[in-house]
Amino acid sequence: MEKKKIRIGNAVTEYYFNATLSKLSEVADKKYSVVLTDENIYRHYEKQLKGWNTIVLKPGEEFKLQQTADAVVDSLIEMEADRKTTLIGIGGGVITDLTGYVGAIYMRGIRVGFVPTSLLAMVDASIGGKNGVDVGVYKNLVGTIRQPAFLFFDVGLLKTLPESEWQNGFAEIIKHACIRDAVMFRELAAHDINWYKSKKTALAALVRRNALLKTKVVQGDETEQGDRKLLNFGHTLGHALENQFELSHGQAVSIGMTYAAHLSESLAGFRGRAKVVDLIEKYGLPTYAEFDRTKVFDVLKHDKKRERDSLHYILLNRIGKGVIQTLPLSQVKLIIEQL
Amino acid sequence: MEKKKIRIGNAVTEYYFNATLSKLSEVADKKYSVVLTDENIYRHYEKQLKGWNTIVLKPGEEFKLQQTADAVVDSLIEMEADRKTTLIGIGGGVITDLTGYVGAIYMRGIRVGFVPTSLLAMVDASIGGKNGVDVGVYKNLVGTIRQPAFLFFDVGLLKTLPESEWQNGFAEIIKHACIRDAVMFRELAAHDINWYKSKKTALAALVRRNALLKTKVVQGDETEQGDRKLLNFGHTLGHALENQFELSHGQAVSIGMTYAAHLSESLAGFRGRAKVVDLIEKYGLPTYAEFDRTKVFDVLKHDKKRERDSLHYILLNRIGKGVIQTLPLSQVKLIIEQL
Ligand SMILES: NC(=O)c1ccc[n+]([C@@H]2O[C@H](COP(=O)([O-])OP(=O)(O)OC[C@H]3O[C@@H](n4cnc5c(N)ncnc54)[C@H](O)[C@@H]3O)[C@@H](O)[C@H]2O)c1
Ligand SMILES: NC(=O)c1ccc[n+]([C@@H]2O[C@H](COP(=O)([O-])OP(=O)(O)OC[C@H]3O[C@@H](n4cnc5c(N)ncnc54)[C@H](O)[C@@H]3O)[C@@H](O)[C@H]2O)c1
Ligand SMILES: [Zn+2]
Ligand SMILES: [Zn+2]
Repeated sequence: MEKKKIRIGNAVTEYYFNATLSKLSEVADKKYSVVLTDENIYRHYEKQLKGWNTIVLKPGEEFKLQQTADAVVDSLIEMEADRKTTLIGIGGGVITDLTGYVGAIYMRGIRVGFVPTSLLAMVDASIGGKNGVDVGVYKNLVGTIRQPAFLFFDVGLLKTLPESEWQNGFAEIIKHACIRDAVMFRELAAHDINWYKSKKTALAALVRRNALLKTKVVQGDETEQGDRKLLNFGHTLGHALENQFELSHGQAVSIGMTYAAHLSESLAGFRGRAKVVDLIEKYGLPTYAEFDRTKVFDVLKHDKKRERDSLHYILLNRIGKGVIQTLPLSQVKLIIEQL
Repeated sequence: MEKKKIRIGNAVTEYYFNATLSKLSEVADKKYSVVLTDENIYRHYEKQLKGWNTIVLKPGEEFKLQQTADAVVDSLIEMEADRKTTLIGIGGGVITDLTGYVGAIYMRGIRVGFVPTSLLAMVDASIGGKNGVDVGVYKNLVGTIRQPAFLFFDVGLLKTLPESEWQNGFAEIIKHACIRDAVMFRELAAHDINWYKSKKTALAALVRRNALLKTKVVQGDETEQGDRKLLNFGHTLGHALENQFELSHGQAVSIGMTYAAHLSESLAGFRGRAKVVDLIEKYGLPTYAEFDRTKVFDVLKHDKKRERDSLHYILLNRIGKGVIQTLPLSQVKLIIEQL
């Protein structure tokens, strides 16, 4: 187990890499902790969670709601959780987002730790302090930004991760490679999902590299005034598509990255478009898609990250070098029509 | 109108003293603001609020709930409030607490301003960034600490404040004088509520003095690790009494201050007990009360500010000089029985 203390803003987060769930009690006191998890995780890891106070939620994005947060608050009261309690989220991004949120508002903030169990949560959702719940059709409309006290990475937990969830994680990993890490891009191109699944050391190193990469981006810009926007590569169009079709987040983002690579080619002289598309395909993710351009543009127009009449769009100068471009809505419209 | 920029932690808050509600539009843009207020305020100031986007809530502590926050979030969505929106709370402490809370979680935090309309909100509730809602019997169990972008003080608004609410405000003012400001204590002793009601300049100066006094305490200790605890003078026993009887907050705190003055006499050699009691009476607030000691001790035992087997109790060394004392629960029990 490797321990690393990292400062983001005013907060210090302890990162534990190469950790094992059974050693969690070395990081948090069972007596003064409450574990928040979902039924899937609990079913697989009930034994390892013996002796911990646990709140077990129904799994799925459809429960990432204020109502669920309210129910967790009620449970915490019942368990007499107080200012000395650590709330530990063990699960995918839904659980870490809920844990971070409840931990931020319960008694105006108690200590929070995350044990991400999905690849996406390990490389993305658990990092950076954004938390929250969905309101109606609006994802993460309510929440806060608050760094956890610790992050506990055990890639052994991925053994039980459903097949389709691996792709969601790799979509974000490819995103990281595109905007910030050409070396990792080449490593990814030399392997595939099955290779990482069979090589625990390589997988652990990949998770660590991505967790630290996202951390670094967030460190420079906790409140997303600048560089943190780079993490939206593939997500602007991605979100619009995710709303319109039955796509997983990873699939939608992959299509978004494909089109962003094309845009980068025409607007920023980017020459790696084919390589990006190949990599996405190599990890079993979709690239091109037929979609209703007018509808998608309509959703883009309402993107909450839009400012008045323009949109921040993330493009690539080259592989490993993302840039933020401000595009007038009218130009975006034109481009989408020509895609 | 006097403008003062004050830093608390990482945030800068603009304080506008001697302001007038009709000039609010000089501080916030009507087009990009939403006003949150209650029916009482809206009834009295509907004319001044013309042209502002408003959400009007039912008045009263019984609506300081997550459900109300949820409803406000829904209204904000409907009004298409976004990251550029300023949420302005115009009301007593219930409204400023709700506004601060919703403003902290909507889109992970939007700009917030307060126009406190009750004396208590002007001198206490609007200052220091604590916000939140009640959960069941637990006051402010859920919330955050986040400083507003601006505070707008118009003592003219107090003209419509119900009689009984003046006392609540003065209880906190007397508290401030006791723990931090002997000069103000003497000023208070030389006048009474009616005098301040009839002298707008003196009232404005009193509000300003108290707002800045609380600000200073919070500046030194935003997260209540130390000095901010001084603001709990009279509140430990006060809260226990408030739960047990039909007392207003100001009444409960006044009885709490009376007993804390006695405790200070026996534990800290405090010699101003009679003066404190006289001042409380001068402002029409209660001092001694019959209460069920066992019951009150039971509530104290569950005070959320307790640490394991002791209680932080605020005592006075002298008038204007509060101190934090850690008392073992057993000693508190003994003292309460002897009161
Ligand atoms: N806070 C952030 O910065 C951030 C960033 C990206 C995504 N997110 C959020 O993350 C969420 C998506 O996260 P996710 O993809 O992990 O979804 P998820 O939490 O729903 O997990 C996906 C599914 O896999 C199951 N699962 C997770 N780990 C498992 C394991 N080890 N074994 C067996 N089953 C397991 C879960 O029960 C669930 O059914 C979204 O709500 C998104 O908004 C947040
Ligand atoms: N955040 C903090 O640091 C802090 C500190 C102290 C108290 N508080 C909170 O403040 C709340 C109490 O505040 P409050 O005493 O102002 O209560 P309140 O907001 O309920 O106001 C009291 C009553 O007076 C009415 N009112 C207020 N201003 C008026 C005006 N100008 N004209 C006519 N009517 C008016 C209100 O409608 C209400 O009926 C509690 O919820 C308490 O927890 C918070
Ligand atoms: Zn994503
Ligand atoms: Zn009070």
